[in-house]
Amino acid sequence: MNESAFIEALRLLPTHPAARGLADDCAVLDLGSETLILTHDMLVEGTHYLPEADMADVAWKLVATNLSDLAAKGAEPVGVLIGHMLGRDDERFVTGLAKVLAHYEVPLLGGDTVAGKGTRTHGLTAIGRATCTPVPARDGAQPGDTLWLVGEVGAAMLGFETLRDGTGADQAAYSRPHARVKEGQALAPLAHAMMDVSDGLLLDAFRMAEASEVTLAIDGAQVPVAAPERRLECLTWGDDYALLAALPQGTEPPCQATRIGTVEPRGFAPLFLDREPVLNAAGLGYSH
Amino acid sequence: MNESAFIEALRLLPTHPAARGLADDCAVLDLGSETLILTHDMLVEGTHYLPEADMADVAWKLVATNLSDLAAKGAEPVGVLIGHMLGRDDERFVTGLAKVLAHYEVPLLGGDTVAGKGTRTHGLTAIGRATCTPVPARDGAQPGDTLWLVGEVGAAMLGFETLRDGTGADQAAYSRPHARVKEGQALAPLAHAMMDVSDGLLLDAFRMAEASEVTLAIDGAQVPVAAPERRLECLTWGDDYALLAALPQGTEPPCQATRIGTVEPRGFAPLFLDREPVLNAAGLGYSH
Repeated sequence: MNESAFIEALRLLPTHPAARGLADDCAVLDLGSETLILTHDMLVEGTHYLPEADMADVAWKLVATNLSDLAAKGAEPVGVLIGHMLGRDDERFVTGLAKVLAHYEVPLLGGDTVAGKGTRTHGLTAIGRATCTPVPARDGAQPGDTLWLVGEVGAAMLGFETLRDGTGADQAAYSRPHARVKEGQALAPLAHAMMDVSDGLLLDAFRMAEASEVTLAIDGAQVPVAAPERRLECLTWGDDYALLAALPQGTEPPCQATRIGTVEPRGFAPLFLDREPVLNAAGLGYSH
Repeated sequence: MNESAFIEALRLLPTHPAARGLADDCAVLDLGSETLILTHDMLVEGTHYLPEADMADVAWKLVATNLSDLAAKGAEPVGVLIGHMLGRDDERFVTGLAKVLAHYEVPLLGGDTVAGKGTRTHGLTAIGRATCTPVPARDGAQPGDTLWLVGEVGAAMLGFETLRDGTGADQAAYSRPHARVKEGQALAPLAHAMMDVSDGLLLDAFRMAEASEVTLAIDGAQVPVAAPERRLECLTWGDDYALLAALPQGTEPPCQATRIGTVEPRGFAPLFLDREPVLNAAGLGYSH
């Protein structure tokens, strides 16, 4: 069974209505006076990190990518649980884990460790509490909204090339991405829709358009990119963990953000880039 | 790094005070009007299940073992997140997952799936809400308490032998264990200490004694065992997911349970079995 078939099969289970985006979104769960935000993402050796990667970077990325999911919901992280397959350089892994948890002031709540052979996998569950309700999702963008990006795209691409080829550029954007927790909390009460850009700006914008049943029109020249001479690559490379938000017309974002487009009534294409229609998601970014 | 070294290293991290038992206990977290109980356990091919196992059984066990951790806290499960490495017989895995979630009326909240080679691992995070506070832990047993067991021990051992050797006995006790969620909720308001017996009764009782700084005296003949002629093996085999509870003297359990011993002031040994001291945990059960 491939991943999409597996996820389709899971969708037939007694899932909670909150489990709207298995494997690509958080669960949102009302519990007593609070609304919980829950996410579980895995990193796999060879797929999500190079086999020779610094395991401190792997631990950092494992935590930061999950916290980025919480950030897109405006959630305040309350803790993480880890599922760790023991192996090479566990000391480095723990060092990176200590650093990233201290950086985000998030406690380790528990977890499990196992021994195994072959591909290493590392799972993390991040738990947060909503700081506002309703919690923004990817499906709320409305015609007339403006589209904003917190952060830039393409830096992770350059960082990856440095790691792979030793180009001398800064690798941190790839190996130690930043979860925009504060910005997510600032935007959440205002945003009609929000998501983190983990698989490439165009692909994730396409997904927001599909979920919201609108058309997103992006002005490519406005998008902050790390490599202007490779603008289109920057728009399609993932791993930057910028935030993409649709705000009501006239609303100024309460944090640093760049206006990159508008939300239009659904036209014949979900996405327009510089007035050119994008009809399907193939080739737009990293699908997994 | 081996597992205990890894866990020791994790204990130096900015852990939440609630993360008292990394890898062997739940986290207990006050959040608004609720107290959350969180646990994450993994199953590993070849370690926790036979390579030829029915993947429906693996899914069942993955959920049931985590729910058993919640049961020992008297928690009501509110949902699970899954971290799944795709592979052989995923259809069976989904079938088993559907069955166990429906059985316990627990929704799937989300998760992640990945591809990989080599040893398969499956992680599950279970989230529950406390039905009473304080939440019982393994460290609260007091001299004068009586010791009760919900369920029997040794059935999983017989089930495992059936799977391995085809002895014809019922394998369900091993492959589809039962989490005693209702019994845990009934006992939690009364129990001074409670834990689930996952690694063998004697080993887990030894751990309760150490955590509570008391001595537990177990009357082996009183313990309900699936194979009376192999009583000592039943007392040391794991995977039965019975509940072990220390109740105040004179308190009758509100569910079916067997009185198997008493809690004494700490003597020279943490555990006595039929008046014989047990001085260390080596060989008492399944340590991992």
